[in-house]
Amino acid sequence: MPLSEFSLIERFFARRAESGPRRAVLGIGDDCALLAPAPGQVLAVSTDMLVEGRHFLPSVDPYCLGHKTLAVNLSDLAAMGAKPRAFTLALAMEAPREAWLQAFAEGLFALADRFECQLIGGDTTRGPLNLCVTVFGDVPAQAALRRDGAREHDDVWVSGTLGDARAALGVLRGEWPSSLFDERELASLQHALDKPEPRIALGLALRGLAHSALDVSDGLAGDLLHILERSRLDARIDVDAVPRSDAVRKLPLDAQRQCTLAGGDDYELIFTAPPGAREAIADAGARADVAVTRIGTISALRHAADEPAIAWHDASHAQLSVTLQGFDHFDAN
Amino acid sequence: MPLSEFSLIERFFARRAESGPRRAVLGIGDDCALLAPAPGQVLAVSTDMLVEGRHFLPSVDPYCLGHKTLAVNLSDLAAMGAKPRAFTLALAMEAPREAWLQAFAEGLFALADRFECQLIGGDTTRGPLNLCVTVFGDVPAQAALRRDGAREHDDVWVSGTLGDARAALGVLRGEWPSSLFDERELASLQHALDKPEPRIALGLALRGLAHSALDVSDGLAGDLLHILERSRLDARIDVDAVPRSDAVRKLPLDAQRQCTLAGGDDYELIFTAPPGAREAIADAGARADVAVTRIGTISALRHAADEPAIAWHDASHAQLSVTLQGFDHFDAN
Repeated sequence: MPLSEFSLIERFFARRAESGPRRAVLGIGDDCALLAPAPGQVLAVSTDMLVEGRHFLPSVDPYCLGHKTLAVNLSDLAAMGAKPRAFTLALAMEAPREAWLQAFAEGLFALADRFECQLIGGDTTRGPLNLCVTVFGDVPAQAALRRDGAREHDDVWVSGTLGDARAALGVLRGEWPSSLFDERELASLQHALDKPEPRIALGLALRGLAHSALDVSDGLAGDLLHILERSRLDARIDVDAVPRSDAVRKLPLDAQRQCTLAGGDDYELIFTAPPGAREAIADAGARADVAVTRIGTISALRHAADEPAIAWHDASHAQLSVTLQGFDHFDAN
Repeated sequence: MPLSEFSLIERFFARRAESGPRRAVLGIGDDCALLAPAPGQVLAVSTDMLVEGRHFLPSVDPYCLGHKTLAVNLSDLAAMGAKPRAFTLALAMEAPREAWLQAFAEGLFALADRFECQLIGGDTTRGPLNLCVTVFGDVPAQAALRRDGAREHDDVWVSGTLGDARAALGVLRGEWPSSLFDERELASLQHALDKPEPRIALGLALRGLAHSALDVSDGLAGDLLHILERSRLDARIDVDAVPRSDAVRKLPLDAQRQCTLAGGDDYELIFTAPPGAREAIADAGARADVAVTRIGTISALRHAADEPAIAWHDASHAQLSVTLQGFDHFDAN
């Protein structure tokens, strides 16, 4: 019986998986993979679906897309303080394109191998381009960095810089002229959009230090609210303290704020920790080789019945009204 | 900040999940869910992606689609002898359709609740209709029903009847006249296509009895080969012994064989077990409330270097040449 084109794809991914790390009891090739968490730990599980035109442009470099498809999922593990272990990949495409799949797989497995994350199963089918990854990591249940653990007086921290991916998108869209930036800056913005770095080492270093954490996928303004809603607290944020790259600083101030507060696609960590942990947090950032910056403070809800809210102010302590939408991917929601 | 339509969908599914079974350490609402297998067991993990036009027709009843989306994944757990525990759902659709989603969720959660399978996470996004489920079940690692465990002289068994879903598709496609069947038969064929029953109870009952198992998604001829390839064995199958419904028996004999041997979308179990286990297998079927039928025998590879193969014969022991393709979903591969 001749193999279908899609069976060939499956075998191609399976072969790549076989030469990689072994983190499962049983990998690809049966009805199910068999997976167990490390002794005394539980599995952190997350799923993200990426759709052409919405999460990536049709013109995207397939190597970068392979990287990003796994990176956005690993970022969820990082935000939980979990250590990557395995993933599944379901892929729909209209017709198998060998060179495209080869490059996609190279980007995917380069990142997977770096974090010893094993491809343990998946599905391939004909259909509009769609990539769905489910990722698994190990974490001691009590050490998981949850969204509901923030406490009054916690500092609010963010890793790396925010807004770079959104600034790159603005260049692609012609929202601001690329002539604002030099070549190195343009490359670094594009890198942020194409090849985000999941903050795994930082997430692991924050176990036992941070009270709460999540990753910035939809923009600081929207994502921080998820911590506040789950923890029933308010926050006060200094918009001028939000870390940004030299490239983003070349934008007009309102565009800088749009990018850093509501840009999205950052995959940096937002986390909260008690003031007494400041030195330990700085050490954790240094060990994980990523900048960590304090941008504000967690406070009690103004009234118990209120919806959690963020009070925004600038470096001069003037209050700001921020009515930004979260990240809108490539079209309006 | 106004919620997007897709956030509302997520909340809708999350609310349904909250009223269901609790099988995870942490469910929906954080960057990751937290999940641990039952003590002494491992997690069986499987992913299936369903695409409109390929795995279901645009006209499909959304309640049935909700059922089937989860059922095809639960069927993979059944084939592994695993007990359902949890699942994630990623869903892309062009625009949120409330009534459609309501019915889809009802079908999905009716089945999930029946098997105490908790929705623990997911993703929703705008895009061509695509449904991707990853499912988790508990199984003792040594008791898992794998594809590579078949042994020489094993009986080959199949549960239920084969070919009903393919016969229903033939009616929809006009390959054979619906006037062949009475109304009850038409309804039962359509039911097989729309609402396959995952053979969870049988899979559990076969732990310690069957040497190998898988579920029939692409057709007996193609799927049995997966066991033979992984186990490096041949098989001899009596095509007239393959169980079929009274409705399928109304088709011409060649169409019966097309449906039962290569129809696909059956989600019955194929399994192998030693002849000494025949009585126990019959008991297992009775306890699981599903017929189990012996259709052939596992044999040694004719030559060690050969590709595993199936020798087909009919009830009169005449050899048949079966050159059927596996299940082709709704279009040619």
